[in-house]
Amino acid sequence: MTGPLQDPIATDALIIGAGPAGLFQVFELGLLEISAHVVDALPYAGGQCIETYPDKPIYDIPGIMACTGRELTERLVRQMSPFAPTLHLSQEVSSIQTQDDGRFKVETSRGTAFLAKTIFVAAGIGAFQPKRLRVEGIEALEDEQLFYRATDAFKSQAAGRHVLVIGGDDAAVDWAVRLADDTAGDNPQRPASVTLMHRRDVFQGPADSLDRMRQLVADGALQLVIGQLTGFDAAQGQLTAVHLVDPEGAVTQLRADSLLVLQGVSPRLGPVADWGLALERKQVVVDTEKFSTSTPGIFAVGDINTYPGKKKLILSSFHECALAAFGAAKIIFPDRQTPLQYTTTSPRLHRMLGVHAPAASE
Amino acid sequence: MTGPLQDPIATDALIIGAGPAGLFQVFELGLLEISAHVVDALPYAGGQCIETYPDKPIYDIPGIMACTGRELTERLVRQMSPFAPTLHLSQEVSSIQTQDDGRFKVETSRGTAFLAKTIFVAAGIGAFQPKRLRVEGIEALEDEQLFYRATDAFKSQAAGRHVLVIGGDDAAVDWAVRLADDTAGDNPQRPASVTLMHRRDVFQGPADSLDRMRQLVADGALQLVIGQLTGFDAAQGQLTAVHLVDPEGAVTQLRADSLLVLQGVSPRLGPVADWGLALERKQVVVDTEKFSTSTPGIFAVGDINTYPGKKKLILSSFHECALAAFGAAKIIFPDRQTPLQYTTTSPRLHRMLGVHAPAASE
Repeated sequence: MTGPLQDPIATDALIIGAGPAGLFQVFELGLLEISAHVVDALPYAGGQCIETYPDKPIYDIPGIMACTGRELTERLVRQMSPFAPTLHLSQEVSSIQTQDDGRFKVETSRGTAFLAKTIFVAAGIGAFQPKRLRVEGIEALEDEQLFYRATDAFKSQAAGRHVLVIGGDDAAVDWAVRLADDTAGDNPQRPASVTLMHRRDVFQGPADSLDRMRQLVADGALQLVIGQLTGFDAAQGQLTAVHLVDPEGAVTQLRADSLLVLQGVSPRLGPVADWGLALERKQVVVDTEKFSTSTPGIFAVGDINTYPGKKKLILSSFHECALAAFGAAKIIFPDRQTPLQYTTTSPRLHRMLGVHAPAASE
Repeated sequence: MTGPLQDPIATDALIIGAGPAGLFQVFELGLLEISAHVVDALPYAGGQCIETYPDKPIYDIPGIMACTGRELTERLVRQMSPFAPTLHLSQEVSSIQTQDDGRFKVETSRGTAFLAKTIFVAAGIGAFQPKRLRVEGIEALEDEQLFYRATDAFKSQAAGRHVLVIGGDDAAVDWAVRLADDTAGDNPQRPASVTLMHRRDVFQGPADSLDRMRQLVADGALQLVIGQLTGFDAAQGQLTAVHLVDPEGAVTQLRADSLLVLQGVSPRLGPVADWGLALERKQVVVDTEKFSTSTPGIFAVGDINTYPGKKKLILSSFHECALAAFGAAKIIFPDRQTPLQYTTTSPRLHRMLGVHAPAASE
């Protein structure tokens, strides 16, 4: 997925990960007048909070009785907004190289490049990646006839095709329903047919969405197939059909020339392991003074780091972000002392936060 | 002010200080099934948040765009409420002694005594104490005719007396107004006269309160004196008059047999310095693994502690409380592993927090 390299973006701080730690890192850096770019593998901010418990309440964020992962993300995005970071989403950092001038050259899977004075690894349990099909050779079809997200590219190639949606949760059911609805309408991008396939006849999702899916199946607008993909046929590099095995072990073939695979995401530590940082049980080792890794200038905050006493708590990551920001300030402003100023009393911070008079409570 | 000693209260954890750190310490201990008693010198919870910026917004509590010191206190009190700690207010810890069984015997200025397995020093910048008069010998009148809080004892002795209120802020103005209003009514406890004294003719407080004060002065129901106390007269141990010097240097005498001094509070590190804990520039030295002091079993969290990288941030104290709670669990439950459980997913924590089903967001 490496695209053409663009001119590198020069930045004081590059944050890897847009989960709660990465978002609050933007805020803490902003208070010290350090602006940041943020890279995340997901197409939206929130990290584990959004991917693993978007609608479940968290009870141990200090001062907040209960908030869901989604609400916490929204709160942190709003809190950091005065510092207007640039988010580079749907891409992973693929390499980090130290330059002669002490800066780090960072490249992502989409060809975005940075020259960063400091790096904050806030990568949680790794980059969330769609769970991919394990069928030999099928990766050659990716971004052509095989998609792991319902992107615009997927939608435009689906027109007139026999689409197979693979997966059993909300997203798979929801997209199967939408596409099947399209086949009945006048949408110029409508598929020729839509099939939903899952390894068991058990689907997750809101009741009305499941009801609608069953109705479309009853009406013949959506095919439902229970089975697992074992292979595929291609002619001149073009997908024409898939092979599948049903729960009884019978092998069949299914016409399909467009695949939308929505089997959830799983975190992948990925290239973090290759950046030369000291690791301990796959966690990045940091000090507790400034949460620096073994490479000066690279900090690690949140669930990815480890130190004596470490607990993987969101509230601990907030503390780590604050101290890491002060650590970075020493590198970015080597000739300046960075005193601790309080948001309650500092007119300078009030200007930066856009709060000129005492603000109303949220 | 040492009262008679009561039977010691046995407790797993004693928290010294009911500011944000002390309040969140209750919560973090509660999650690990450790119940706590809390001691504070102030008559209410909140510490510096309440004493120094009750109505000013704080902008760097993670996930909370803005909240005043008072609001943060209310939020933390509500959050810890499932764990129902006992608060012992208006008293300071005066001594800590290690017992043969490893527990700590703790006594307060009001004679409350504890036998605690662990102690959490969350004393901030010290115990907030009313600013006292600096007039030789006047301390002998304290709690008889001289009061630093408008307690019930003050109110009952004020009946029929010439009351002098000293101070220039809200509290002093407010109490001068209330007492002067009383002199006009039928209240059996009404003073014979009320005088408000401040070193300058500048008073702080809500406009309506200041207006009311000036009106009472104009009506002759309240005397206003600008000056500073320099001495006093007593006959047979009873206060009869005070001496004061006005801004021009003239010395006068004023009849007064009851003093209410409301000159604000100031923090006093006080006996913390005498507990034998390792200190560095008047801060308690802790490790960053469990925020233990040099005495095993005594932890220190919040503004009172120090370690490499320490910043006096409320958000750092939250992290310190969490790790200190795990440190204490090892002492309180020596035979038990204490795994990290998440409030988002643990049914056990849900029961303890009283949230049986996913709760609505606050």
